[in-house]
Amino acid sequence: MTSEAITVLGLGNLGRAVAEAFLRGGQVTTVWNRSAAKAAGLDGAVVAGTPGEAAGAGELVVVAVLDNRAVREVLRGVDVRGRALVNLTSGTPDEARELAAWAAENGAEYLHGAVYAVPQTIGTDESAINYSGAGAVYERWRKVLELLGKATFVGDDAGRASGFDVAILAGMYGLIGGFLHAAALARAGGIGVGELTPMLLSWLVDLHPALVTFAGEIDGSDYAGGESSLAMNQSGLAMLIRAAEAQGVPFAGLDAVKALVDRQVAAGHGTESLARAVESLGSQRLAG
Amino acid sequence: MTSEAITVLGLGNLGRAVAEAFLRGGQVTTVWNRSAAKAAGLDGAVVAGTPGEAAGAGELVVVAVLDNRAVREVLRGVDVRGRALVNLTSGTPDEARELAAWAAENGAEYLHGAVYAVPQTIGTDESAINYSGAGAVYERWRKVLELLGKATFVGDDAGRASGFDVAILAGMYGLIGGFLHAAALARAGGIGVGELTPMLLSWLVDLHPALVTFAGEIDGSDYAGGESSLAMNQSGLAMLIRAAEAQGVPFAGLDAVKALVDRQVAAGHGTESLARAVESLGSQRLAG
Ligand SMILES: NC(=O)c1ccc[n+]([C@@H]2O[C@H](COP(=O)([O-])OP(=O)(O)OC[C@H]3O[C@@H](n4cnc5c(N)ncnc54)[C@H](OP(=O)(O)O)[C@@H]3O)[C@@H](O)[C@H]2O)c1
Ligand SMILES: NC(=O)c1ccc[n+]([C@@H]2O[C@H](COP(=O)([O-])OP(=O)(O)OC[C@H]3O[C@@H](n4cnc5c(N)ncnc54)[C@H](OP(=O)(O)O)[C@@H]3O)[C@@H](O)[C@H]2O)c1
Repeated sequence: MTSEAITVLGLGNLGRAVAEAFLRGGQVTTVWNRSAAKAAGLDGAVVAGTPGEAAGAGELVVVAVLDNRAVREVLRGVDVRGRALVNLTSGTPDEARELAAWAAENGAEYLHGAVYAVPQTIGTDESAINYSGAGAVYERWRKVLELLGKATFVGDDAGRASGFDVAILAGMYGLIGGFLHAAALARAGGIGVGELTPMLLSWLVDLHPALVTFAGEIDGSDYAGGESSLAMNQSGLAMLIRAAEAQGVPFAGLDAVKALVDRQVAAGHGTESLARAVESLGSQRLAG
Repeated sequence: MTSEAITVLGLGNLGRAVAEAFLRGGQVTTVWNRSAAKAAGLDGAVVAGTPGEAAGAGELVVVAVLDNRAVREVLRGVDVRGRALVNLTSGTPDEARELAAWAAENGAEYLHGAVYAVPQTIGTDESAINYSGAGAVYERWRKVLELLGKATFVGDDAGRASGFDVAILAGMYGLIGGFLHAAALARAGGIGVGELTPMLLSWLVDLHPALVTFAGEIDGSDYAGGESSLAMNQSGLAMLIRAAEAQGVPFAGLDAVKALVDRQVAAGHGTESLARAVESLGSQRLAG
């Protein structure tokens, strides 16, 4: 592939892995980091003294710093006219949208990337990045972005990649919280966590088709079906909470799930699908 | 297979599916239910008027009622001498152990079964039951028990099957809570839950090897490794909680997970593995 001029702002764990992947891919890479020491040992990189100097060197400017507030601090006063900004920093959908608006006002294009990888896997098949925002930037820079791992464009709204990201992280922490509770319960019952885990994971995978069914029920706001009713889950949860307390391992995360179910049962929906518990989360359906 | 004399006490959703599977398998099946009407339509079953009469007819006595308190009420005063009791009622490990002790005092053998199935799948490959307690009962009745679905013996401790059960259910409700929160966040961000769910599930499956690693760390009480540190997850969770609030979809389950992480970070373990968060759940490691 051709060699392009690229800038990386931020050399934390992610930024450094990104710069290394560009360098391995033969790109002309200019880097900057707030603490200059972190640029050491990046063979072949051009080290800039200021964000402005760095952004002046690359047509594509990739940013990966702590959070979007830091992104604003880094970019403040920098001339970004004609630049393609790719922001890999994690944050909320609204923060990404605000940065896209700021970029537009300042003559730059904006693409947001949500990274599903640890720094060690950047540049391998195990890394996946969802991009949203300027579709033209994605197409123009696709080959270069693919140096970081699998790339997927998820829409023109700059906030969309972060929207998926936030949702996926919420799902992930649910799984992790449930796993930790399961592990503590197993341990309290004299069961090895290593013995439990394969059983648990295979049972969870068996549950995935039910979650796909729930997704359809939620999108259609139709909870009339339901092999797994709210009432049945309410009593299952009550039993489980009792059992966890009896084993000396209560967990507020479980009470929180039961509270979602309780609210729907109290509203008279006991025979409907467990998926209706999503309505307890107070989200508003957007128009359109 | 040979035809055996079997009793089923309790004809709720589960008990009825169990009796039907035995009848389909050609077993001589005697049934009893507190409300007699539920025995209607069970073609070929012998309907008994009392639990004692029913238990007198079967060498193997299967119980499936609401909870273990109901099991005690059903069996109170019943002559169970020489009987093999198989209890499929959900409950805590200790309840199962107490019932095993009661059975021993009353001249019966006791096997507890934890059912992973919905009534519709009882008798098919999609149904799995973990048994623990009297190994001799399991071996003697294995072929008959396999009429209900896949059977696995998980140990001599009558409480062990329930121990796995409680742990697996806790993991399941973590996954479900996380999925519901993810769905609400997606919806609030204008993303279809049907579009999110396959992405989410594939990312969760990618996480499974990390959970297997966590299991080893927990069993070994060694959290020194850790690609995914407590501190990194603490800031990820803080960002996520902020994002969920900004989208109008806070969820106490997420705060509960963060509280587990916070406690370990506060105790000075920030650089260690996320798996250490299990220690916040206050379980005591059992001796031996
Ligand atoms: N690491 C991953 O695997 C991964 C995966 C997905 C997403 N992310 C996201 O990527 C972003 C970076 O993560 P990371 O792991 O690289 O973090 P990190 O190792 O903690 O590095 C943070 C970086 O941000 C810089 N920074 C912080 N505040 C700044 C400010 N006010 N002005 C300028 N620079 C500032 C730091 O500069 P100094 O060196 O001067 O402190 C450092 O370069 C985060 O939003 C993270 O959520 C990371
Ligand atoms: N259904 C499943 O897929 C499934 C899966 C795994 C585990 N389980 C467990 O299996 C057990 C039964 O579940 P289920 O779905 O069959 O419940 P169910 O449909 O609600 O039936 C409950 C049964 O318990 C009886 N019962 C309740 N209290 C009683 C008492 N004090 N004395 C005598 N009988 C009493 C009821 O009798 P009446 O008809 O007279 O009310 C009825 O037969 C539960 O512990 C459940 O957690 C069920």
